[in-house]
Amino acid sequence: MADYNFDFERRSRIGLDEAVFCAGKSAEQVAAIVAGVRQGVTGLLLTRLDPDKFAALPPEQRNALDYDPMSRTAILGRPRSQEPGPAVAIVMAGTSDVPMGREAARTLGFNGQAHQTFTDVGVAGLWRLLDRIEEIRQAPVVIVAAGMDAALISVVGGLVSSAVIGLPTSVGYGVAAGGTTALHAGLASCAPGVPIMNIDNGYGAACAALRIMNMLRASERPAAKTGGDHHQSERTDLAS
Amino acid sequence: MADYNFDFERRSRIGLDEAVFCAGKSAEQVAAIVAGVRQGVTGLLLTRLDPDKFAALPPEQRNALDYDPMSRTAILGRPRSQEPGPAVAIVMAGTSDVPMGREAARTLGFNGQAHQTFTDVGVAGLWRLLDRIEEIRQAPVVIVAAGMDAALISVVGGLVSSAVIGLPTSVGYGVAAGGTTALHAGLASCAPGVPIMNIDNGYGAACAALRIMNMLRASERPAAKTGGDHHQSERTDLAS
Amino acid sequence: MADYNFDFERRSRIGLDEAVFCAGKSAEQVAAIVAGVRQGVTGLLLTRLDPDKFAALPPEQRNALDYDPMSRTAILGRPRSQEPGPAVAIVMAGTSDVPMGREAARTLGFNGQAHQTFTDVGVAGLWRLLDRIEEIRQAPVVIVAAGMDAALISVVGGLVSSAVIGLPTSVGYGVAAGGTTALHAGLASCAPGVPIMNIDNGYGAACAALRIMNMLRASERPAAKTGGDHHQSERTDLAS
Amino acid sequence: MADYNFDFERRSRIGLDEAVFCAGKSAEQVAAIVAGVRQGVTGLLLTRLDPDKFAALPPEQRNALDYDPMSRTAILGRPRSQEPGPAVAIVMAGTSDVPMGREAARTLGFNGQAHQTFTDVGVAGLWRLLDRIEEIRQAPVVIVAAGMDAALISVVGGLVSSAVIGLPTSVGYGVAAGGTTALHAGLASCAPGVPIMNIDNGYGAACAALRIMNMLRASERPAAKTGGDHHQSERTDLAS
Amino acid sequence: MADYNFDFERRSRIGLDEAVFCAGKSAEQVAAIVAGVRQGVTGLLLTRLDPDKFAALPPEQRNALDYDPMSRTAILGRPRSQEPGPAVAIVMAGTSDVPMGREAARTLGFNGQAHQTFTDVGVAGLWRLLDRIEEIRQAPVVIVAAGMDAALISVVGGLVSSAVIGLPTSVGYGVAAGGTTALHAGLASCAPGVPIMNIDNGYGAACAALRIMNMLRASERPAAKTGGDHHQSERTDLAS
Amino acid sequence: MADYNFDFERRSRIGLDEAVFCAGKSAEQVAAIVAGVRQGVTGLLLTRLDPDKFAALPPEQRNALDYDPMSRTAILGRPRSQEPGPAVAIVMAGTSDVPMGREAARTLGFNGQAHQTFTDVGVAGLWRLLDRIEEIRQAPVVIVAAGMDAALISVVGGLVSSAVIGLPTSVGYGVAAGGTTALHAGLASCAPGVPIMNIDNGYGAACAALRIMNMLRASERPAAKTGGDHHQSERTDLAS
Amino acid sequence: MADYNFDFERRSRIGLDEAVFCAGKSAEQVAAIVAGVRQGVTGLLLTRLDPDKFAALPPEQRNALDYDPMSRTAILGRPRSQEPGPAVAIVMAGTSDVPMGREAARTLGFNGQAHQTFTDVGVAGLWRLLDRIEEIRQAPVVIVAAGMDAALISVVGGLVSSAVIGLPTSVGYGVAAGGTTALHAGLASCAPGVPIMNIDNGYGAACAALRIMNMLRASERPAAKTGGDHHQSERTDLAS
Amino acid sequence: MADYNFDFERRSRIGLDEAVFCAGKSAEQVAAIVAGVRQGVTGLLLTRLDPDKFAALPPEQRNALDYDPMSRTAILGRPRSQEPGPAVAIVMAGTSDVPMGREAARTLGFNGQAHQTFTDVGVAGLWRLLDRIEEIRQAPVVIVAAGMDAALISVVGGLVSSAVIGLPTSVGYGVAAGGTTALHAGLASCAPGVPIMNIDNGYGAACAALRIMNMLRASERPAAKTGGDHHQSERTDLAS
Repeated sequence: MADYNFDFERRSRIGLDEAVFCAGKSAEQVAAIVAGVRQGVTGLLLTRLDPDKFAALPPEQRNALDYDPMSRTAILGRPRSQEPGPAVAIVMAGTSDVPMGREAARTLGFNGQAHQTFTDVGVAGLWRLLDRIEEIRQAPVVIVAAGMDAALISVVGGLVSSAVIGLPTSVGYGVAAGGTTALHAGLASCAPGVPIMNIDNGYGAACAALRIMNMLRASERPAAKTGGDHHQSERTDLAS
Repeated sequence: MADYNFDFERRSRIGLDEAVFCAGKSAEQVAAIVAGVRQGVTGLLLTRLDPDKFAALPPEQRNALDYDPMSRTAILGRPRSQEPGPAVAIVMAGTSDVPMGREAARTLGFNGQAHQTFTDVGVAGLWRLLDRIEEIRQAPVVIVAAGMDAALISVVGGLVSSAVIGLPTSVGYGVAAGGTTALHAGLASCAPGVPIMNIDNGYGAACAALRIMNMLRASERPAAKTGGDHHQSERTDLAS
Repeated sequence: MADYNFDFERRSRIGLDEAVFCAGKSAEQVAAIVAGVRQGVTGLLLTRLDPDKFAALPPEQRNALDYDPMSRTAILGRPRSQEPGPAVAIVMAGTSDVPMGREAARTLGFNGQAHQTFTDVGVAGLWRLLDRIEEIRQAPVVIVAAGMDAALISVVGGLVSSAVIGLPTSVGYGVAAGGTTALHAGLASCAPGVPIMNIDNGYGAACAALRIMNMLRASERPAAKTGGDHHQSERTDLAS
Repeated sequence: MADYNFDFERRSRIGLDEAVFCAGKSAEQVAAIVAGVRQGVTGLLLTRLDPDKFAALPPEQRNALDYDPMSRTAILGRPRSQEPGPAVAIVMAGTSDVPMGREAARTLGFNGQAHQTFTDVGVAGLWRLLDRIEEIRQAPVVIVAAGMDAALISVVGGLVSSAVIGLPTSVGYGVAAGGTTALHAGLASCAPGVPIMNIDNGYGAACAALRIMNMLRASERPAAKTGGDHHQSERTDLAS
Repeated sequence: MADYNFDFERRSRIGLDEAVFCAGKSAEQVAAIVAGVRQGVTGLLLTRLDPDKFAALPPEQRNALDYDPMSRTAILGRPRSQEPGPAVAIVMAGTSDVPMGREAARTLGFNGQAHQTFTDVGVAGLWRLLDRIEEIRQAPVVIVAAGMDAALISVVGGLVSSAVIGLPTSVGYGVAAGGTTALHAGLASCAPGVPIMNIDNGYGAACAALRIMNMLRASERPAAKTGGDHHQSERTDLAS
Repeated sequence: MADYNFDFERRSRIGLDEAVFCAGKSAEQVAAIVAGVRQGVTGLLLTRLDPDKFAALPPEQRNALDYDPMSRTAILGRPRSQEPGPAVAIVMAGTSDVPMGREAARTLGFNGQAHQTFTDVGVAGLWRLLDRIEEIRQAPVVIVAAGMDAALISVVGGLVSSAVIGLPTSVGYGVAAGGTTALHAGLASCAPGVPIMNIDNGYGAACAALRIMNMLRASERPAAKTGGDHHQSERTDLAS
Repeated sequence: MADYNFDFERRSRIGLDEAVFCAGKSAEQVAAIVAGVRQGVTGLLLTRLDPDKFAALPPEQRNALDYDPMSRTAILGRPRSQEPGPAVAIVMAGTSDVPMGREAARTLGFNGQAHQTFTDVGVAGLWRLLDRIEEIRQAPVVIVAAGMDAALISVVGGLVSSAVIGLPTSVGYGVAAGGTTALHAGLASCAPGVPIMNIDNGYGAACAALRIMNMLRASERPAAKTGGDHHQSERTDLAS
Repeated sequence: MADYNFDFERRSRIGLDEAVFCAGKSAEQVAAIVAGVRQGVTGLLLTRLDPDKFAALPPEQRNALDYDPMSRTAILGRPRSQEPGPAVAIVMAGTSDVPMGREAARTLGFNGQAHQTFTDVGVAGLWRLLDRIEEIRQAPVVIVAAGMDAALISVVGGLVSSAVIGLPTSVGYGVAAGGTTALHAGLASCAPGVPIMNIDNGYGAACAALRIMNMLRASERPAAKTGGDHHQSERTDLAS
């Protein structure tokens, strides 16, 4: 299969490093990719790396990787140093949504983005959420991970002014099995302006948050933002 | 096509009168059914009777019917006299859910069941609901009508101890078109013990509430319940 | 992962104890939850606890739990003492529907609710049902568990005046695989007033029955029902 | 568009005449087909011919056709003379299923097959069915037309030993809209040996019954059945 | 779980013995059912009995059962002696359809019905089918088992005058995975009068064929058919 | 809305002219596009132009357009002069598939590609197809348009060695409504190497055929093919 | 129906004004809502107001409303004065996507947000997009509206570092009818960090953009942001 | 099971050898088929042969087979000698699409068709594709294998004039699980004239390419093409 064709310019183009999605790859393929990367100097994030697959990697790779089995993520090399500014909130309806929330958290951490997590605040016990809503409101970006009927996405979307990103999870059974009900409920949310990620896509939710946080940091700086430093010249004449 | 084969013993068997579902029937068929009934002494509820179809009925039938275009229901004969006891609550997320809530309300009224309605209390503006939740809690049975993501069903189910019946509506577009998302979200509700009706089935939600209210009234009476025969002598005055 | 965030006030709010849904949790997570509970005084119901996961719990937890592998439920602590009044009926179409019916039965038992089960009464052999229908009619609430075409839900709904709760099961293959056909047939039932639970949700069906039975008991009592606060002092003896 | 390419040998090959399905054809196309047929000597069955389309045919064609708006069928020429032997039963759950049942009845009549119809015997009022089940049992082939949850198909399939053909109809709304629930419930029937037609395919149900009745008649005759050639000389009088 | 509630009167009612569907039952449950039956005198057909489950039965049961792993069927007791008259044809598109065709064949054999099988005659190699079509035409009932696009059902239905029963199978991948495409293609067949079974329901296809063959045999007998009572005395020798 | 942004270089890039898909555009938008084109020199193909929309165009545009209501296509300017070489075959199962087949034919004609059509050759009357199969085999590319179960796609794919392109149509009802069954049956075809277009996409089927015919013509020429630049000088005479 | 229950505090709570979704409301209901609002002082945005419904409003309301038929939006009162800072980009694949893009544009304009639109840049003509990508990159938020296969969402997401919001549209036919294919393709985008709105939800896409722009403006100001002025105190200690 | 019924005349009929699809067959069945073939003289291609199933074949068969575990294909006997002429291009979006692309490559190789593969050129990193597009353009037939949103199919289809065959893969999760999103996106491609194979059908994509390449070679030769040598006489008179 020859060499993995890395998209090394992704960060300069869209402000995000490439990550390796391991779900459809054999341990041999993952090992070959990791070996290729280590010859370079960048860090690497691996997602959907099952414990069995991790265990099948060469010992020296296992030692070099910071692996978290619950989120099935592994990090090679030091994470990016923490960016300044406020934290991203990750709100999870229940314990079963933690793996997806944690995938988002690990992705944020790898990219140097501060974040804070809130768990077991599903709407069946509404007051648990209301007790913490002021804290959640402090974050400019809020990721809401919920399965089943995903009612939490709508309720949070109706209570905070931040950018809210819905992360439907595959938690559930019967009509909720696989997460389609959570996805559809999120998309049909009665709270306005809440876009949605694919089911269980914690990595993507974090990337969406990073795009926003990158824009925030760029707008705060007098000079041009990084991650696409072609944005320098502010426009002046955009009335439609 | 001969004569409509009424199930006259339905009330004695299950405590509910038969209703005529008009959606798949021509105006001629509906008129024939109404003509057949008027020769008897019972009242009759017609559901899903569109204004055009109502307008195509013979003038004397139109005069004899109490027709409500918003809920598309018509009542022939005087409704059953009001039963004693508490009211059923009908909670509607938004204005667009009113037709379905009203179908439920008219069905309850036809059967002599007191009821109270609550509108525009969807979770996108959570405090509108919380302002009224104590009133809602007074009802032993609460029907919750909601479309889109139907998050209201879960939130109400998590806030009241009453019997709650979810009534998903076809309000919505995109993934919510037709009401499937509301239905699935209701079925997957994180609030425990909330059964769900078919989409837009306000008539059925009312019947489910009536079954429960009938049991309540039966349990309050000293004599034992025996297979439904306590329903026989309750209605005497329905000739039109 | 820290501590599980129990919703201790659920009973005072909605008349039902919280239960732990174990399907998406690891044995370690379940053990941590059980350990947390035992420090308190309440009983606990665990659902969807597979035999393998149960076997992976610490020995002292396994000893303390009343585990039933067929329904995959476990009960910690003594169940609530039995409430007065009539039994809930649980009607099952076939042997394959027993696990779901039993999840409902165990949930009722944990909450002190009397119940009676009826098995192998599917409509392919209609007389088996008709032989027992008078007994079933005695129950104020009837749970009907059926897979495949779930025709039993409609037939029972047309024969009894009680509150009927449809519990579609995932029994079947081909178009019936996963229970969607049973769910849809239940929702489209030609018998009026039969609300439906999510597929295989025996726990939820029992909770829906408990909500109704709670209302029945409340209506029989002289004092008025006020927002659920009649539940406060009912349980005093649940330490394990 | 040139000429319609009739399959004139269909009867000799499979024992059934070709019929013209008009749903996807313009009035002009239908008129051209009818004009082509009239030059021959055979009769013709047209299905799914809407009243508007019928009204747009040339006057002399309208006069020549025996048109039934409820079933949307038209017959050109005299129907085949009635075959000897028992009638096929057509059982319909409700008034709304009559158009589909009537399409089957008209198809049987066109082919000279005796038949008997049973209406308003849906399972919500089970005794209406049980009152007539002995009559239904006399038919060697029973077509059961039902929409919604189509529970009637299972119940009849469990009560008679005849060949039973399920005809799901598009009667219903919500999850039952379009007839998919009825179709799936029929396919998943707990009664054994009940094959199912496409939704609303009354014509096809009649053809399936005709195939069986043809086999019955063939088996009653002393001469052996040989590949269909027993159909050759049966029809002599269909010129219009 | 108590005792399995057999429907012993099924044969007298609908002309078919009850069979035990083992897919959703544990080996213990199956063993209990078999043990219950052996105390009686009837034979028994078990379907969907996986090799693993069969291997977990008690040795004396394994010895008493005639087990066929390919069709996953087991027969207890001697099959019914063969009925007179022509054979049912079972036509299979490819090798992968053989297990379903064989389930049908074993069900026919258990009921004493002669049958003949035709394999590898899928339409991708049309001449293989045309070479055998005259033989297939001799059967009064033809079962056609096909997966993928199930084009064979339409082609056979257009070539024979017999009663044809479509048996869609779950053979396929991508859009054909699970058999839904084969099912839908069968239902939408352009050949008229071909009813369809649920996916992989070889048992049901055989039962549908048996209903027809029973009617054929009844019509050949001088005495009139009366609601199934011609089945009463036919089986006397099934004790194992 | 300003000006329509034509992709004038599409032909030089992929060998196909841009066409205007009119289904989602108002008559005003279509008129504006046509007006823009007429100022240039190229011809233009419009697809999905309903008769009502055509009638709402300005008279001078209606005069300038070659409109065909059955296929809902309109051509502006003279079609490309006919390319040398063999014809493409368009095979249609029934009369109802003609509009889609004709859209393909008109697209081929507009591009100067010879073609031949075959109608009413569906597999329910197999010999109609076999009578013409030798003619069909002469075409290097065969488009097969079929709805319902689309069995014709498989049968043709198994009988010819040409490149075969499946064109599923929306002809059908019940499970076949909208064409999904035909699409899936085509994709799951048991005949190897038959790719499929979107439902009713006659334009696309023709484009796929044109790509192949372009490659055939290119391979026949002595000069090498280089990225499409052989298309530059072929069209000179299309001003209207 | 009494009075519409406005959520007047929505802006102070989530930074967005309430809008009236008119799709499920009668002209009478819309008129009543508009009449209620005019007594206040705020502006109002109405979405999904069809031309027919607009025409049925009272003349004085029609005069008072700024109505745009293409986007089916109406604005009552003066829009909010334009906020400072960069414009939001709205990128549309084709002409048919303009109504949805325009709904977004009108929503942004009503809220005082500068924006710039880009049309006819679908990937079938990739260079049209590449020609404008530098302009698009200037916007901190990019809304991408596309139907059919919605490939434009992925391509833009892979080319810009801005926050990208996918807006799938219902443009298409066959498998793309209704927009589900565009929705799913957007959710499954291979470009990381692109969240998606419900189909045709231009209003929601604009609200999502507004949430982000509000955060940007808040982060640029030394003092607190509006629209939830509870965000004042920046956090300092959020390491996870 | 007797003997496998080979379609030995497939090559002479459609220009392609039969292949054995092993997914639904046991190792015993595969071994029996291979044993049957070896007595002949032809080569054989086996697809979907899992490593476990391969390992269960008899040792002498394993030695005789050229097995590739990644594509799960095995070749018996020498592949056909390479045909003259240009190579087919196989373009794969990512590493996870390699198994399907390789199935296509192995099928081409078995049939003596030259081919060239291009990997890791997905549109998230668009320049990787643009860097190689000139090479891809040289191929008269381009197979594009992509999962997730399959945007690569549209982008390539818009950039090359060759015959393009879309091969959607099952790579993905959430809404993309199983490949349906990739399939639908391919079918709805905004690039014209790109037909699509069933999900993961690399074998079929290769066969479709072979049909085209066979036509190319036939058109280049003065005499008749092979693979259906009934094509000899070129037609002359096909104007429509």
